[in-house]
Amino acid sequence: MDSIKNRRTIRRYSSRAIDPQLLDDMLGTACRASTMGGMQLYSIIVTEDADMKAKLAPMHFNQPMVTQAPIVLTFCADLNRATHWCKLNRATPGFDNFEMFFNATIDALLVAQTFCTIAEENGLGICYLGTTTYEPGQIVQTLHLPRLVMPVATVTVGYPDECPAQTDRLPLDGVVHRETYKQYSDEDIRRIYALKESLPENREFVSINHKETLAQVFTDLRYTKSDNEAFSAKLIATLRQQGLI
Amino acid sequence: MDSIKNRRTIRRYSSRAIDPQLLDDMLGTACRASTMGGMQLYSIIVTEDADMKAKLAPMHFNQPMVTQAPIVLTFCADLNRATHWCKLNRATPGFDNFEMFFNATIDALLVAQTFCTIAEENGLGICYLGTTTYEPGQIVQTLHLPRLVMPVATVTVGYPDECPAQTDRLPLDGVVHRETYKQYSDEDIRRIYALKESLPENREFVSINHKETLAQVFTDLRYTKSDNEAFSAKLIATLRQQGLI
Repeated sequence: MDSIKNRRTIRRYSSRAIDPQLLDDMLGTACRASTMGGMQLYSIIVTEDADMKAKLAPMHFNQPMVTQAPIVLTFCADLNRATHWCKLNRATPGFDNFEMFFNATIDALLVAQTFCTIAEENGLGICYLGTTTYEPGQIVQTLHLPRLVMPVATVTVGYPDECPAQTDRLPLDGVVHRETYKQYSDEDIRRIYALKESLPENREFVSINHKETLAQVFTDLRYTKSDNEAFSAKLIATLRQQGLI
Repeated sequence: MDSIKNRRTIRRYSSRAIDPQLLDDMLGTACRASTMGGMQLYSIIVTEDADMKAKLAPMHFNQPMVTQAPIVLTFCADLNRATHWCKLNRATPGFDNFEMFFNATIDALLVAQTFCTIAEENGLGICYLGTTTYEPGQIVQTLHLPRLVMPVATVTVGYPDECPAQTDRLPLDGVVHRETYKQYSDEDIRRIYALKESLPENREFVSINHKETLAQVFTDLRYTKSDNEAFSAKLIATLRQQGLI
């Protein structure tokens, strides 16, 4: 699994196209991922058209990967298809609720991540766009997602045109707990985050933003309480609109 | 990626132990998965102790994999660690909301699925327990999960003691949409589900349960509206208790 060990997120792509057969093979293999009761509660929207990418870009805060990548994939939790199947078969579905949305979200993310692993093993680079949960209502509209379908992850895919350094990870014992959750002491937290805080790029990040600590960059600039709360409200509103909460 | 193409969920495990070094290597490599802003908003609880497995089993409806597998992993969305880090660093976190819970859920599931792919590539078998979202409150208690931590997926892992047939998947064009979501016609739905409905094991399933259609097995027995709604209420109550909604 060297391709996983050596992976890095790729945000710049070469102009080389992805062979359509390869894309279908990778998508088909990704669908072997585990799925709740064999139901495959997801849909994958493939965006290749330049106009469609241009429409999606603002929903992803105009991150250049959206228009530059040959392929953009939007992985959706989908209870619409299964509901339709039930209604056609004299069965009364009860899939319009949070439990089933959450199950469908798990299904969609297992397929998404399996796809990414396969893509990287095939020499492609990927980038997850965390913005998908920020403006889900606009994505719903642009991709014509019907009731009971919700976008949960967007991935840009293409052949790499960069090889950035690998980003840091917390030490393994900082994220793994044996038998029960071991609550962290202040000392533990300082140790676990020491490497991240010491990295030159992170020190630079603190300095150019005139902050005292790296954590302040996260709370005051990148993921502020007011943004998170505003996005929460939008996310819940879109779930309600799609009939999933 | 033959291990993905040929995968099947494994529910019976041999008595062969998993080498602790291999487990740590696999967990460490899995942590290379993409993560929101490099924050790694997850924790992984490793259960090896027989007493702990026995305690977890009823929360997973006593499915035998929980006590039989050498290792049970509970993947959790974790905003507790990052919040603690911020508080120690004169930063004011706003991670106690649904948006951040959802981001952390994505992080946790990408690691979970990467781990599963690596485990299977190493000859191990895995099974996802969908029950994790049914009784999250009890799992929180048993694993001592603090506020801002929520279990999202449980995986049993071990060397296979069975080789079941691969389960069916819908045709690729049944789950993939080009550019926009193509709403399904009745005809489409019949075609997409035709293989699943025709399988001898599924016909048998319908017959022994005295149902008319396979869809009725899903709506009347496996995933009923009343169960789904009751589980939704519990899931939301636990999110509220953990400070995540």
